[in-house]
Amino acid sequence: MVDEEKCRANIKRMVQKCIKHNLEFRPHFKTHQSSDIGRWFKAEGVTGITVSSVKMANYFADNGWNDITIAFPVNIREVDAINALSNEISLTILISDSVALESLKTSITNPTGVMIEIDTGSNRTGFNINHEAEISDVITEISEVKNLLFKGFYSHPGHSYKARCKSEIHEIHKGVLLSISDIISGTNLNREEYNICIGDTPCSSVAANFTGIDQLSPGNLVFYDLMQVQIGACTLSDIAVALACPVVAKYPSRNEIVIHGGAVHLSKDVIDHESIKHYGYPVELTKNGWNPTNKNGYVKALSQEHGIVKCTNEFMRFIHVGDIIGVLPVHSCLCADLIGSYQTLKGKSLNHIRSSSIQYYG
Amino acid sequence: MVDEEKCRANIKRMVQKCIKHNLEFRPHFKTHQSSDIGRWFKAEGVTGITVSSVKMANYFADNGWNDITIAFPVNIREVDAINALSNEISLTILISDSVALESLKTSITNPTGVMIEIDTGSNRTGFNINHEAEISDVITEISEVKNLLFKGFYSHPGHSYKARCKSEIHEIHKGVLLSISDIISGTNLNREEYNICIGDTPCSSVAANFTGIDQLSPGNLVFYDLMQVQIGACTLSDIAVALACPVVAKYPSRNEIVIHGGAVHLSKDVIDHESIKHYGYPVELTKNGWNPTNKNGYVKALSQEHGIVKCTNEFMRFIHVGDIIGVLPVHSCLCADLIGSYQTLKGKSLNHIRSSSIQYYG
Repeated sequence: MVDEEKCRANIKRMVQKCIKHNLEFRPHFKTHQSSDIGRWFKAEGVTGITVSSVKMANYFADNGWNDITIAFPVNIREVDAINALSNEISLTILISDSVALESLKTSITNPTGVMIEIDTGSNRTGFNINHEAEISDVITEISEVKNLLFKGFYSHPGHSYKARCKSEIHEIHKGVLLSISDIISGTNLNREEYNICIGDTPCSSVAANFTGIDQLSPGNLVFYDLMQVQIGACTLSDIAVALACPVVAKYPSRNEIVIHGGAVHLSKDVIDHESIKHYGYPVELTKNGWNPTNKNGYVKALSQEHGIVKCTNEFMRFIHVGDIIGVLPVHSCLCADLIGSYQTLKGKSLNHIRSSSIQYYG
Repeated sequence: MVDEEKCRANIKRMVQKCIKHNLEFRPHFKTHQSSDIGRWFKAEGVTGITVSSVKMANYFADNGWNDITIAFPVNIREVDAINALSNEISLTILISDSVALESLKTSITNPTGVMIEIDTGSNRTGFNINHEAEISDVITEISEVKNLLFKGFYSHPGHSYKARCKSEIHEIHKGVLLSISDIISGTNLNREEYNICIGDTPCSSVAANFTGIDQLSPGNLVFYDLMQVQIGACTLSDIAVALACPVVAKYPSRNEIVIHGGAVHLSKDVIDHESIKHYGYPVELTKNGWNPTNKNGYVKALSQEHGIVKCTNEFMRFIHVGDIIGVLPVHSCLCADLIGSYQTLKGKSLNHIRSSSIQYYG
């Protein structure tokens, strides 16, 4: 279930924040993977977007988006698909290590934007910011390849997911800004000629200082989820999706209900709450949506199809076998990817591509 | 990737075990969700199967299976779909609490088998075995409903997943057998008139005593996975699936490679190895499959699309950007559900239904 109003409010809030800070908003569409929800961004003036696979880029290109960044280390096995797509739209790819660049020099056939991915502390992907000479060489090499157009630097400060309050997010963001300042001072390029883009929802939502940054590409903010609440990036009221789950059994002696909503629906991301694992929060579904609360209990375990919900006495009395409850997800991106479609509170169906199901490599 | 030979060997081993112990093998098809792989069971003489949703039951009924148990607490909102299916095949549903039974009394329109789910220690679903009077009442109530045919008792001893060696599995299985003995002595039914079915892969794989049990319905054994290795249910060599993942970046200074293989491909089940989280083991893929090993390193983190693999020095030297490696999954059921298709080592495609994507409730 998607609460369209909350979803549009989340989008609008980030659009306005970007306007205020003179940033280009290039939202990451991996979270919703929906051309229908994409239109809600377009309505707010968004024209450039970010995705995490060539398949997703093709899908959004087919749906009218013509300025797309694939924010994933370029997969050199997909170069034919990249060339086909860059023939149609303005495409930007990520160079995250020097080996991939070597291969692209001879295989890219159309003008293609390139951002250099830098690692600002997440230790996931990107060039180490201390390897200045290497980064400098990569910029030079890119400039020497006819079809590669250097666009700037990209970073996903994923270590912000370790934060557990706003001040911790601010602290991490400060470190990111320092890294970016190092990158800027490490190059002798004209600052007007390239962009710096960062893309995590916690820093994008909470930070108030974006010195050195030109573009923001958060994705999760469109829905938010319990993990973002735990991090301090949003409140329970901002969460714009809930998984509708039928109640199939009720065990009063254990204060537990069983729902058809398991690991194949919610995925298995988890938050720890006082050393107890929570896989979601149960909420009552009404025509107007749900009352955002963590006071009804929690999903304590997931099998493939089963969810076990530990309930308060009150929620236990209130819920019956045959009811449908909502579950606020721990990680909305993974839940949306698993379900593969949405319904708004007004009953309208929204599409979803499920980019995970097929990959390009032969 | 599916290693058909290993897969067929896993099936055959369980078929032979069931013959030896005079058990009916009713494999759970939720793991593979594939009519193609279903045929490998049929080739070994399997005629009755187990699934975990009405959608899955419909899919296998459409593919020629006509004796199906839906081993999930019956969802009373799906009664129309159940009635439609029971018109076509021999269908058995699960009663896991007394409320659902009440609703079915008036809504089931065709003869439908019913098993009473009992909780033999997993605390997930089913009647508490100590509530003898309640179970007795349910049996009586079932016998009074024209279209409900009492078939026996079903249990999934999911607490066997907490085992970490064969002797712990044996210990848990002993407790399950005791519970079953209590159930048998608690009813005054003729023992010939009902079946007892249990369905977990660890006990099914390891136990050698099945006193009181008539049917086995494990599912995971078709593929096995790292979790089953950790539990003690199989060896690394028994694992019959690996996720093929392209290598997209390489960071020698961290001894890490990055693969296109994330939480939307592997799901997020995890095993703890000396307090380090492992999301999978990387293996070299060759034309003959893979060398089953945990000696190349481990998948240390998963984002939505990224997998970060910590590598040994040797594997690091051996693997290059652009290669495709295999990843032995922690939980093969969830990985297969996410990918939604298979390829054998000989390049043959096998289908998969993805039962999670759509559910029946209006």
